[in-house]
Amino acid sequence: MLTGKNLIAGEPVDSTDGCFSARGALAQFEEASAGHVDRALDASEHAFHDYRRVPALARARFLDRIAEAIERRDDLVEAAHVETSLPLDRLNGERARTVAQLRMFASLVREGSWLDARVDRAIPDRKPLPKADIRRMLIPIGPVAVFGASNFPLAFSVAGGDTASALAAGCPVVVKAHPAHPATSELAARAIIEAVEAGDVPRGSFSLLQSSRNEIAAALVRHPSTKAVGFTGSLRAGRALFDVAARRPDPIPVYAEMGSVNPIFVLPRALIERGDAIAEGLKASVTLGVGQFCTNPGVTIGIDDDRLVQFVGRMEGLFREAGSGTMLYPAILQSYEAGVQRLSAMIGTGVRPASDDVEFRARPAMFQTDARTFMRHRELGEEVFGPSTLVVRCGSREEMEGVARHLEGQLTATIHGTPEDLAEYARLISILESKAGRLIFNGFPTGVEVCASMQHGGPYPATTDSRSTSVGTAAILRFVRPVAFQNFPSASLPEELQDANPRGIWRMVDGELTRSGW
Amino acid sequence: MLTGKNLIAGEPVDSTDGCFSARGALAQFEEASAGHVDRALDASEHAFHDYRRVPALARARFLDRIAEAIERRDDLVEAAHVETSLPLDRLNGERARTVAQLRMFASLVREGSWLDARVDRAIPDRKPLPKADIRRMLIPIGPVAVFGASNFPLAFSVAGGDTASALAAGCPVVVKAHPAHPATSELAARAIIEAVEAGDVPRGSFSLLQSSRNEIAAALVRHPSTKAVGFTGSLRAGRALFDVAARRPDPIPVYAEMGSVNPIFVLPRALIERGDAIAEGLKASVTLGVGQFCTNPGVTIGIDDDRLVQFVGRMEGLFREAGSGTMLYPAILQSYEAGVQRLSAMIGTGVRPASDDVEFRARPAMFQTDARTFMRHRELGEEVFGPSTLVVRCGSREEMEGVARHLEGQLTATIHGTPEDLAEYARLISILESKAGRLIFNGFPTGVEVCASMQHGGPYPATTDSRSTSVGTAAILRFVRPVAFQNFPSASLPEELQDANPRGIWRMVDGELTRSGW
Repeated sequence: MLTGKNLIAGEPVDSTDGCFSARGALAQFEEASAGHVDRALDASEHAFHDYRRVPALARARFLDRIAEAIERRDDLVEAAHVETSLPLDRLNGERARTVAQLRMFASLVREGSWLDARVDRAIPDRKPLPKADIRRMLIPIGPVAVFGASNFPLAFSVAGGDTASALAAGCPVVVKAHPAHPATSELAARAIIEAVEAGDVPRGSFSLLQSSRNEIAAALVRHPSTKAVGFTGSLRAGRALFDVAARRPDPIPVYAEMGSVNPIFVLPRALIERGDAIAEGLKASVTLGVGQFCTNPGVTIGIDDDRLVQFVGRMEGLFREAGSGTMLYPAILQSYEAGVQRLSAMIGTGVRPASDDVEFRARPAMFQTDARTFMRHRELGEEVFGPSTLVVRCGSREEMEGVARHLEGQLTATIHGTPEDLAEYARLISILESKAGRLIFNGFPTGVEVCASMQHGGPYPATTDSRSTSVGTAAILRFVRPVAFQNFPSASLPEELQDANPRGIWRMVDGELTRSGW
Repeated sequence: MLTGKNLIAGEPVDSTDGCFSARGALAQFEEASAGHVDRALDASEHAFHDYRRVPALARARFLDRIAEAIERRDDLVEAAHVETSLPLDRLNGERARTVAQLRMFASLVREGSWLDARVDRAIPDRKPLPKADIRRMLIPIGPVAVFGASNFPLAFSVAGGDTASALAAGCPVVVKAHPAHPATSELAARAIIEAVEAGDVPRGSFSLLQSSRNEIAAALVRHPSTKAVGFTGSLRAGRALFDVAARRPDPIPVYAEMGSVNPIFVLPRALIERGDAIAEGLKASVTLGVGQFCTNPGVTIGIDDDRLVQFVGRMEGLFREAGSGTMLYPAILQSYEAGVQRLSAMIGTGVRPASDDVEFRARPAMFQTDARTFMRHRELGEEVFGPSTLVVRCGSREEMEGVARHLEGQLTATIHGTPEDLAEYARLISILESKAGRLIFNGFPTGVEVCASMQHGGPYPATTDSRSTSVGTAAILRFVRPVAFQNFPSASLPEELQDANPRGIWRMVDGELTRSGW
C-alpha cells in the first residue's frame, strides 16, 4: 500500500540515500537527497507559470477535490493514530478541520476580495500631467516550501493550512514531511496527487519529500526557485530556516510559527466570581492533547492574595490527580522532561501526579514562583512544550504590568476578569496588545477557530513574521505579492482587473469599494 | 536659522561626535552618537503606547498639519536646491507631491477600510463546539526607522512617503537624514515638530538624527525598540541594513527599495508605427533629472531588424546632442562614471555628448550589445545610477524571452507594442509579471503616480521585500500587523471593531463586506 518513496510531480522516485522509519514502522521511507530537492523545485518552477494562470474557479475546484480525497481516505486517520499516538477521536476531528480548511480556501478563491484589486482610471486631461490608468492586484509569489508539523499530522502537515493557502494563492508546493509521521504524509500526498490527476492543474504543482535530515531542510530553503517558506515547529528549527533564507543571495520570507507560553492573566474579581471554574478550565487547557499545542498556556499570572492561594491550591489538587498521556515521539518527551527538570532546579519541585511507568507517557506538572524570580530568570518565560504550567504571583497591578512587559512575543494572551477588571487593567491589556497576536477574554487559548478573523501569529519569537497568520483566510496573504499594470488594454489584463469586472469581485475603483464594472 | 543639531522628541540636543556639512555648507551639522540613537528610540518606545491610541481623526489632522507646515516653508525648497542642485521647478513639484502624500494618508486613515477589520460573531449553539466571537484588525507594529533618500530630498526623505505612511499607521518615526541634504532635513523635521506641537500627538513620536556614519545607521536598525525599517537607496546599503536586521535576536522587517534597470521591451510593430517617438520618449526618460530615479530605464530590448537599426540610429543622434546635468553629490557622479567605464570596457565605447568640463556634471551615455553578450555578463544587467541606457539586440522572440528570464527582480518593466504585439508576446508579458512590481504598456517608467493602485516595489534586488510598496496608499501596510480579540465585550474593543461600527468603516462581517453595524 505504501511506497515509502519521495513523490515528485506525482511520481514515486527512487533514492539511494538510506531509509528511516517512525513509530509503528508502517514502512521504511527513503531519505530524499539534494538531487530530489532540485528535481522537486525544478518541477515547481516549471509548473508555476501554468498553475498561476489556472482560472480561479478551477483552482477552487482543485482544492475541493483535495478535500474530497482526504475525506475518502480512512487509512489516513489510522496511520496517523499509529504514528503519533493521538486518539482516533482527535484525529477524526483534525481530519474534519483539514477538509474544512481546504473548502474555506476554495470559497475564498471564488469570492475574490482577498486579491485586494484596485483600479485608478486614467484622467487624460489632468493638469499639469495626465493621469495614467493603473490597476493592482495580488499575484502568487512562486514555489513554496512547506514543513509539516509533528503535533498536527493532518491540519498542519502535507495537506494542512500552509499547503492549502499556498495552493489557493496560486503557488506550487513542495512539502517536507515531518519524519515522525511519514506514512500519514504519504497518504495525504496521494490524496493531493489524486486531485491533481483529476485535471486542470500541472503535475509539478505538488511534491512530497521524506527526510529526517537538517541539511535537506536547508537545501529546500536555499533553492533558487523557492520563493517562500511555511513552517510550524520549534524556535530552534524555525530560526535556523529563517537564517538560511536571510543569507540567500535573494532573501525570501519565512513564515515560521514557533509557539509561545501563552500567558493567562487571572484578575482579582474573576477569581472571586469563579476561581474554581477557571482552575478547572486551565487544567483542561494545559493537559489537552498532552499539552502538545502551540497555544498551550505555559504561564498563569495572578495578584498574590487569599483568592490566588485558594486558586493555586485547587490547581495543585487537579494536577496531582491529572492523567498522563503518550507524547508524539520519544525526543519530544525527553525535551519535555528536560524542561520540567530545568524549572524544578530553578524554582523547586512542582506538583505532578504519581508516575505510572508507561513508556513515552508524560505527566502534567504545575509550578509556582513570585514575579521577581520570574523576571530575574529569562528561561522561566521560555516554552516547555508539553502539559506544564507555571503560576506567577505578583504583589500588585504594577508588578503584573511589569511581568507583561517582560514577556517575549506570544501567539496569544488571555485575560480572565470582570468588565470592572478590564477597566482597571486597561494598561495591562494595552501592553498585551503589543506582545501577542490574539487576546482572549474569559476563555482559553487552545482551540483555534479557523475563520476570516483568526490571527494565529505574533511578535518574535512566537513567529519569524508578526505580519502573518498561519490559520484562517488571511494565511493566503503570506504567499502573494502585488503587481500593478499601467495603461494596459482591458482585454490583456487578468480578468480580475478588466473593465467589466467579469468575476464580480469586490474592488477599490477610484477610491470606492464596489463590485460593479463599467 | 538652522540649529545643525539632532532633534530628539522635538528638542535640539548637543553632540560631541564631530560635524559634517553638505553642498552649499548651509550649516555645520552635528554627528549623532550611539547615545542619540538610544535617546531617540527610547522616546519613540515611550511615545508609542500613547501615539497608537490617538484616535484616527486626530491622527489624520496631525498628517494634515504636517502638510500645511511643509506648504508654508519656502526655505525648504531653497535649501534643497542649494544642497542637491535639483532645479527649483522640480523641487516645487516634489514639495507638492510630499504635501499630497501626507493628505492622501490622512484621507486613508479617515476612510479606514485599510485596517482590514474582520468580525466573525459568536455561534453559541454550534455543534460539536460553540463558536467564539473573534474580531481582527491591523495595528501599528512599533517605532519605525526611516532612512532619507538622496534623490528625493522631500518626497522620500524626512517628511516623505515612508514617514507619512508610518505615522499614518500609528508608528512613531526616527528619521536618519541623508547626509547630502542635512539643512533640507532639519527644515522638514521642524515642520513635523510644529505639527506635533499643535497638539494631540506625543513629542516622542518623531525624531531626526543627522549622521554620515554607517555605524549609526546600523545602530538604528539594531536598537531593540526599532520594529521596522524604511529605506530608499543603493543595493549595497539596503542589503547591509537588511543583514543587520536579520541578525537581530528578534529579526524585524526591512523595506529597502534599491532600484533596478527597469527594462523597456520595444516590440516590432511599435517600432514600425512610432519608432522615432519611442526613441524621443526613451531619451527623455533616461535623462530626466540627470537619470537619478529608481525607475530610470537602464536597458532597452528589441528584435534585431532594420527598424531597430533605425531606432538605434535615432537614439544615438539624440544622445550625442543630449545636455549634461549636475548630479546630487560628488560621490554619485564618480559612481556613475565608474559604471559608464565598466560598460565601455565590456562592450565598447557608447555614444555620449561632448564634455562641457563643468564640475559635477554628468553626460548621458548610450550603449548597445547583442543578447548573447548581455546574458554572458551578469554585470551588464546591474544598475548604473545616472543617465545611461543599454540597447540589447535579440535575434528572435525566443531570445527576447530568454533575456527577460535572465533579468533580476525589477521595480518596473515596460512594453512598447500594438495589441497584436501583446497577443504574440503573451509569454514575454507573463515572464515580466514574475520579474517586476509594475508593468507599463506604451509609456515610460519614470513618473510614479501616487495612488491606491500604485506598486513601487518588486522582487529582490529591486527591494528586500517584494510584498511591499513604498509609494501609494498600500505603503501603510508595511508598518502594521494583525491582532485578534476573542470574546471581548464590545465596549472594551477598539472602536473599529465595536458592534455598532461607530466610524462606519468597511468591515468583513461574517463573510460579507459591509459598513453597517448592529
